[in-house]
Amino acid sequence: MIEQLIQKANEQVLEIIQNTQPVITGIGTALDVVPGMTKTTILHAGPPIKWENMSGPLKGAVMGALIYEGLAANAEEAEKLAASGEIKFDPCHHHNAVGPMAGVTSATMPVWILENKSYGNKAYCTLNEGLGKVLRYGAYSSEVIDRLKWMENTLAPVLKEALELHGPIDLKTMLAQAIQMGDEGHNRNKAGTSLLIRELAPFIVKTSFHEDDKAAVLKFMHSNDHFFLNLTMPACKCTLDAAMGVKYSTIVVTQARNGTEFGIRVSGLGERWFTAPCNAVKGLYFPGFTEKDANPDIGDSVITETAGIGGFAMAGAPAIVQFVGGTPKDAVNYTTSMYEITEGENKSYVIPFLNFRGTPTGIDIRKVIETGILPIINTGIAHKEAGVGQVGAGLVHPPQKCYEDALEAFVQEMEKEGVI
Amino acid sequence: MIEQLIQKANEQVLEIIQNTQPVITGIGTALDVVPGMTKTTILHAGPPIKWENMSGPLKGAVMGALIYEGLAANAEEAEKLAASGEIKFDPCHHHNAVGPMAGVTSATMPVWILENKSYGNKAYCTLNEGLGKVLRYGAYSSEVIDRLKWMENTLAPVLKEALELHGPIDLKTMLAQAIQMGDEGHNRNKAGTSLLIRELAPFIVKTSFHEDDKAAVLKFMHSNDHFFLNLTMPACKCTLDAAMGVKYSTIVVTQARNGTEFGIRVSGLGERWFTAPCNAVKGLYFPGFTEKDANPDIGDSVITETAGIGGFAMAGAPAIVQFVGGTPKDAVNYTTSMYEITEGENKSYVIPFLNFRGTPTGIDIRKVIETGILPIINTGIAHKEAGVGQVGAGLVHPPQKCYEDALEAFVQEMEKEGVI
Repeated sequence: MIEQLIQKANEQVLEIIQNTQPVITGIGTALDVVPGMTKTTILHAGPPIKWENMSGPLKGAVMGALIYEGLAANAEEAEKLAASGEIKFDPCHHHNAVGPMAGVTSATMPVWILENKSYGNKAYCTLNEGLGKVLRYGAYSSEVIDRLKWMENTLAPVLKEALELHGPIDLKTMLAQAIQMGDEGHNRNKAGTSLLIRELAPFIVKTSFHEDDKAAVLKFMHSNDHFFLNLTMPACKCTLDAAMGVKYSTIVVTQARNGTEFGIRVSGLGERWFTAPCNAVKGLYFPGFTEKDANPDIGDSVITETAGIGGFAMAGAPAIVQFVGGTPKDAVNYTTSMYEITEGENKSYVIPFLNFRGTPTGIDIRKVIETGILPIINTGIAHKEAGVGQVGAGLVHPPQKCYEDALEAFVQEMEKEGVI
Repeated sequence: MIEQLIQKANEQVLEIIQNTQPVITGIGTALDVVPGMTKTTILHAGPPIKWENMSGPLKGAVMGALIYEGLAANAEEAEKLAASGEIKFDPCHHHNAVGPMAGVTSATMPVWILENKSYGNKAYCTLNEGLGKVLRYGAYSSEVIDRLKWMENTLAPVLKEALELHGPIDLKTMLAQAIQMGDEGHNRNKAGTSLLIRELAPFIVKTSFHEDDKAAVLKFMHSNDHFFLNLTMPACKCTLDAAMGVKYSTIVVTQARNGTEFGIRVSGLGERWFTAPCNAVKGLYFPGFTEKDANPDIGDSVITETAGIGGFAMAGAPAIVQFVGGTPKDAVNYTTSMYEITEGENKSYVIPFLNFRGTPTGIDIRKVIETGILPIINTGIAHKEAGVGQVGAGLVHPPQKCYEDALEAFVQEMEKEGVI
C-alpha cells in the first residue's frame, strides 16, 4: 500500500515538473517584489544559518550587501552590524528566491521575476554580476559595490523596459534549446546567454535609454557567459516549488548550501530541512590557487541538478570538462548514473547524444540510499576567506547524511500516518 | 619518391589550412569589391555552366537577380535576357567568392569581405536571406526582390558601420566556439548566428542609423539561424584558396555544385575542374513535398566539408539529424569515417564528444578512391523548378567520377613530370 501511495505521489511530482512553464515576466526591486523582504533583511543561499556560523565567502557577501545598501560605511562597520542582531538573515528559499554561491540578496537589488505559468507561483533571482571579483563569491571591494550600483541604475532598468516591450519570455523553450547547444544550465550557460541576448537585443535598441547605456548593457551580457545562470536557477526554483508538499512523495524539491551546511527538502516532508556539513569540491583551480584556498560547497545553484539539469545534463555539455575537470566520457557517465536515482526523464530537456533522451529528473531519496549513488553537482569554488572571490570550478556531491536523515524522517512520518 | 613528394605537399596544404586566420573585415558592394565583377556579370555556385544547362533553381535565382538589378522588368524579360548572351555567367569560385545553393551574386548585392590574415587572400559571400522563399533556392517573387532591396539598403549599411566600429572579427575563434555548441557550420548555424549577434549588437546600437533600422537588423539576424552560414562559407573559401596550387598535393581544395554538375579541384592540379552529374539528396522534406520535387545537389556550401567542417563535423552537432535525417549515432559515424579519407585533424575545430579530437580535414583524392568512402555532405534541398524555394534538407555524396577523373589526371600529370 505504501509503495503505491509513494509511486502515485512521485508520479504526480514528476508530472508537475514536466508541465511547468517558467517565463520571465519582468524585473523588480527585491524590497518591492520578493515576499517578506525588508530593508534590513539579507537573504542567503542554502539552509538557515546564523552569522557566527557563516563561512568566509558568505560573510564577505553579507558585508558587501550592507555596504551596498548604505547600512555600513566599510567592512568593519558591516561586520559589526551583521553580528549585532539588527539584520535578519533568511534563506532565499524561504522567499521564493534563489541565489548562486553566497546567494546574498538585499532590499535594493534588482531581481528577475519569473512566473510558473502552469501553476501561478513565482520565483526571484538577482542579476548575474559576471566573473572575477564579485559579491556572490564573497568579494566586497569598491569595484564590486560600484558594479552592483551600475546594475541597479542601468542594467536592470534597461532590461526591465526591454522586457516590457518584448513581453514574457518562455524560458523552458530557451533552456531546452541551450541544452541542445552544449549548456547544462549550471556551470555552462554560454548558449543560454547567447539566446537571451539575441532575443532581447532588438528590444534593448527600442528602449528610451541613451545609446551608451544600451551598448553597455549588451556588452555586459556579452562579457559574461554565466549571465543566463540567474535565469536557469529561478526557472528550476519555480518548477520545484510547484512540486513541494505532495503527500507521500519521496522526491527532493530543494538542495542548497550556505557554505557551511548542505540542506535538502523533500516534497512529501514539506518545509523541513535535512542538513549536514558541506563537502569539499573537487575541481580545477585558477592559476595561483589550490584546494587549500577553497571554501566548502556553497550556493543555491544546485537547484538546477534538483530539477534535472546541471550535473545531471552533463552528457549534453561535454565541453564543460575543460572547466570542472574530467573527460567527456565522465560527463556521459555522470548523466547515465543519475537515471538510477531519479523518477523519470525530462520531456523538455533532452540530450541529442543520448538519442534525444530526456535528462534524469526527480531525485528519489529512496533510490539514493538504496543505490548509494549521490547526486552529481557542477559548481564554482569560492575562496574560503571573505573578500577574495572565485578560485575554481569542479564537481561535488551532497553529504549522504542529508539523504539518510530525510529517509528516516519519511519512514517516521509514514509510521505516524499509519501507512506502514 | 612520388609518395614522399605527395606526402610533403599534402602536409604543406594541411599546414596552410591549420594556420589560416579568417577574419571579417567589412561589407562592400559586389561590383566594388569582388574581383572581375561587372554590371552584367552573374556569379553562380558550382563549376562553370551555360544558361541552357542550368537547373530550375539556378535559372530562377538568375532571373531574380536580373529583376533585382533592374536589367529585366519581369520573369519573361529576365529569361530572355539570360538566354541572349548579354549576361556573363561565371562561377563564384573564379572570383574568390562562394554562394549557398544557387549562389547567385550580382553587381549591386552587398557581400561580406573576409581576409585570410595569415596569407593575405580574400573571400566574398552575399548576406544570408533567411528561410522560406529566397533567391538562393530559386524563388524570384516580389517578396524575394523586396527583401534583397532591404538587405542592400538597410541590413548591409547597418552591419557595415557596426563592423567599422567593432573592427575585424576573428572568425576562426568564433567558428571553433560554435562547433563546441552543436553547430557543424553548414546546415546548423544556430550557435554561430548567436555568437555573431552578441558580438555585433553593442556596435549596431552605436551606429548612426534610426532605431527602427537597428532593431530590424537585429530581428532579421535573430529570425534566421542560417545567418552565419554565409560567413562559415567564405571562412572556408579563403582557407582553401590559400592552399590552392601546391605542386604534388592530392588534397581537394574545392567542391561545388551548380545544380546540374558537381565539380572538384585539387591543390596540385590548380584551377582545373573535374565534374560529373550531381547526385540526388537523401533527406527530410517539408510538409507537402517529396523527393519528386527535389533538384539534384546544388551550391558552394560544400566548401565547409572541404575545409573539415559541415558533414565532417556532424559528431559535434547531433541535433542536426532532426533536420537532415538519421540518428545521432549516424552523425558520429559520418565524422569517424571521414578520418579515413583525410590528411589530418583540425587543430581549431574540435569535437568535445570525441574527446576534443579535431575534425577530419583535408580530403585526399587517393584515399577516397582507395577506400571507396566518399565525402559526406549536409545540404539543403531546392525545388527543381524555378520560383519555388527550399523543400527540405538532407545528406549527399559527390559523384565518385569526379574523384576518379581527378586521380587519373593527377597520375597523368606525374607521368608528364617524370616522377612516376
